[in-house]
Amino acid sequence: MSNLTLYDSLTGELRPFEPIHAPNVGMYVCGPTVYSDVHLGNTRTFLSFDLLFRYLKHLGYKVRYVRNITDAGHLESDSDVGEDKIAKKARLEQLEPMEIVQRYTVGFRNVMQAYNALPPSIEPTATGHIVEQIEMIKKLIADDYAYEANGSVYFSIGTYLEKYPYGELSGRSIEDLESGTRDLDGQQDKRHPLDFALWKKASPEHIMRWPSPWSEGFPGWHLECSAMSTKYLGEEFDIHGGGMDLKFPHHECEIAQNKGATGHGGARYWLHANMLTLNGKRMAKSTGNTLDPRDLLTGESPHLSKSYTPGAVRFFIHQAHYRSVLDFSDSALQAAEKGYYRLLASIEALAQRPAQGPDRGTWNVAEWNAQCSEAMNQDLNSPVLIAHLFDAAKAITADQKDPNILGRAGAAELLNAMNTWMFDVLGLAPEHQSGSGKYQKALDAAMSIVLDVRRKARESKDWSTSDALRDALAQGGIVVQDGPEGSSFRVE
Amino acid sequence: MSNLTLYDSLTGELRPFEPIHAPNVGMYVCGPTVYSDVHLGNTRTFLSFDLLFRYLKHLGYKVRYVRNITDAGHLESDSDVGEDKIAKKARLEQLEPMEIVQRYTVGFRNVMQAYNALPPSIEPTATGHIVEQIEMIKKLIADDYAYEANGSVYFSIGTYLEKYPYGELSGRSIEDLESGTRDLDGQQDKRHPLDFALWKKASPEHIMRWPSPWSEGFPGWHLECSAMSTKYLGEEFDIHGGGMDLKFPHHECEIAQNKGATGHGGARYWLHANMLTLNGKRMAKSTGNTLDPRDLLTGESPHLSKSYTPGAVRFFIHQAHYRSVLDFSDSALQAAEKGYYRLLASIEALAQRPAQGPDRGTWNVAEWNAQCSEAMNQDLNSPVLIAHLFDAAKAITADQKDPNILGRAGAAELLNAMNTWMFDVLGLAPEHQSGSGKYQKALDAAMSIVLDVRRKARESKDWSTSDALRDALAQGGIVVQDGPEGSSFRVE
Repeated sequence: MSNLTLYDSLTGELRPFEPIHAPNVGMYVCGPTVYSDVHLGNTRTFLSFDLLFRYLKHLGYKVRYVRNITDAGHLESDSDVGEDKIAKKARLEQLEPMEIVQRYTVGFRNVMQAYNALPPSIEPTATGHIVEQIEMIKKLIADDYAYEANGSVYFSIGTYLEKYPYGELSGRSIEDLESGTRDLDGQQDKRHPLDFALWKKASPEHIMRWPSPWSEGFPGWHLECSAMSTKYLGEEFDIHGGGMDLKFPHHECEIAQNKGATGHGGARYWLHANMLTLNGKRMAKSTGNTLDPRDLLTGESPHLSKSYTPGAVRFFIHQAHYRSVLDFSDSALQAAEKGYYRLLASIEALAQRPAQGPDRGTWNVAEWNAQCSEAMNQDLNSPVLIAHLFDAAKAITADQKDPNILGRAGAAELLNAMNTWMFDVLGLAPEHQSGSGKYQKALDAAMSIVLDVRRKARESKDWSTSDALRDALAQGGIVVQDGPEGSSFRVE
Repeated sequence: MSNLTLYDSLTGELRPFEPIHAPNVGMYVCGPTVYSDVHLGNTRTFLSFDLLFRYLKHLGYKVRYVRNITDAGHLESDSDVGEDKIAKKARLEQLEPMEIVQRYTVGFRNVMQAYNALPPSIEPTATGHIVEQIEMIKKLIADDYAYEANGSVYFSIGTYLEKYPYGELSGRSIEDLESGTRDLDGQQDKRHPLDFALWKKASPEHIMRWPSPWSEGFPGWHLECSAMSTKYLGEEFDIHGGGMDLKFPHHECEIAQNKGATGHGGARYWLHANMLTLNGKRMAKSTGNTLDPRDLLTGESPHLSKSYTPGAVRFFIHQAHYRSVLDFSDSALQAAEKGYYRLLASIEALAQRPAQGPDRGTWNVAEWNAQCSEAMNQDLNSPVLIAHLFDAAKAITADQKDPNILGRAGAAELLNAMNTWMFDVLGLAPEHQSGSGKYQKALDAAMSIVLDVRRKARESKDWSTSDALRDALAQGGIVVQDGPEGSSFRVE
């Protein structure tokens, strides 16, 4: 079906993509923990997987894309200790935890929508799958992969190591991992220092709690992804994605849970999107070296000289490969924006190309298109794809002087291909087709007629008609300006 | 805190609104069953409660507004028989049920966003509260309000009637209700003909299922609202809303479940939004007498001559009281749109008023503002509020000729109040600030001139001008439609 290869973090190599049940593809991506605004690093990760989702669809796969919302169980330390991130925010803001969840889920969806990310096929929540998580724990306990201690349940790394290795994804040895564990509160119930919680008994002040066979409590953070990915995609599925920072402990724990409960590690390809920096330095709220995905659209940040359209930002993001570190800076964004608008202008010019020249030109559209596919087939090499798009833009410019370059049919094919790569695959919003653009274009057409009528009225000194037209237009917020070169208009 | 009175469907009277824990207000509204596109009737209902939410916030209340998403348990018959609506759609479209849920949840949110409805504080789902529903059933069984039969659990109306009346909300007697029940499949397990399912054992082909003490199955439709409203708002809360059609059986069953489980009927005020008709007749897909909330924005419906902005539609909806039947028609929408744009133009003019005249004018802004509040305090009488807004528009026009009418400070106060009522309370998006609305309005003005020119050309049988105009408009994506009543246009 395709020649797509993907870099699998688990094996550390590029592997041909062979779905289990082609043309169906199952893809799971770890979504946000909705206790604060989504940050730019998350945004890049989700746009990277949106690119993958779009490209798989482009290749003709029928993709079931599951991206979860973590609305419980994620503790402050990313480990088994500390307060629940959402419950803590709820306490600080004096709200019900689910009000916090709603606020930041809505905010997250708005950012995704603004950046033209397609909604996933299913968006399950941790609190929506308490039953499934409890069932998975029961299975793990029955097979000795988990044990109960004081109302909490832990995954038993000791038992697991008898059958499976642990640490493969993050490439760490058990010794390294053990030496990294600390003696922390709540760890005393664990049999092995790397054991992790599947179920935590709720302390009296913990308000997010559910009944279970072991205690009133809540699921461990890692468990939800195992429960939800297998529920919606099966015990073995194709792709699991997430940000680089989730490799350990989150994804290692997921793999262990899945193998313990089902004998399979879950996904056959593990994909990880790389980190962001800002002006060459690590982003951190504490130092102020930080940028919000909304800031880019408003320009309201000391790090920005202006606002950017979502398309320009997305173009900038895909100009880097998803596995490379990406550095944000105002100047780099400006350069990307310039390039992006150049490509948009090229497409516009191509759309309006007069039907001239031969049927086929000298520039080989099919070959160029194959090169674009080849780039994307190489582990989604979007920077190379974009370089090819600029090559096409050069050909379009050359063709304006010499219609033998593209030819009539060639130009039509190229337009189709450019639209596909730019808008369907790279997910760049066609800004000229957006709501206001459509009406702007229609208004231009209508107003050229109106101004012509008015010009004729003025030429024949029919001032009453001319004034009536001006007033009627003013009702619609249109201001007519008469100048030496004729009349123009603007909308207030 | 306020002089708000609300019409309580349960007592059938206007009652002063007294929240249990002022300034906090708890409000629950039955949301959509996400197995198909949200229809215009639902849209009106949700906009009515958005108006209430906005007005309560305007009054200074801290509102926790819970609106659920029904993603399981709602069977085809709205009763206890037939297939699950979502599972059926999933079967027909060969998708996982949660893919159906996601598609229509996203669609619903997009419609709500387009019509400028604020997101509720919490948006819980039925599948997200299986545990809570099972716990509520256990409680009802323990107190004899429910019984198990063949793996399903039913609410016992017989037991309930020993202590409470049933049918109060819909104003029906037990005898009437009993005579309305039919002998249907799956009813043979029931002890009383009005008993309803709390838990249904899943048939082998039913894929949406969860383990429970009684069977692998799924919750009854009515249960989710009792479980979620009490979880997030407490056993007694302030307001419960929904569409008129939910009074029976849904809300009667909710009240029974709540009283059985907690001794309280849940909400202290039950509010119901009335129905819609289209051109004087009941909307029904089967007869084609139907309109979609999206159609209004694109104009793509045989019932519409043009598209409308969300603000104009919303203005039209709030020009009727939420408890009145509202008839949609193209001509009524056009009239509302005209009025709405007149108000927007008034606000615009007021914002640009020169600082002239005395400090205070002859027109009493404070008194007018109090009348606006009074209207809304009368069970959200938005039509009267809107009539007051037109009075203000008249004063604004008069003041343009005589600045003694409003005065400088009076004008500033009025501007502030108009903005508050129009945008904060009525939730009308300030279209002149939104990209596409601004151009749409301008386009309407320009096109009314163009269509007039074209009409004159056609009247004088100048077909070449008429055709040339049509072609020029087509360049801008404008399609002209000629009908017996004249010409209209839409933008493609």
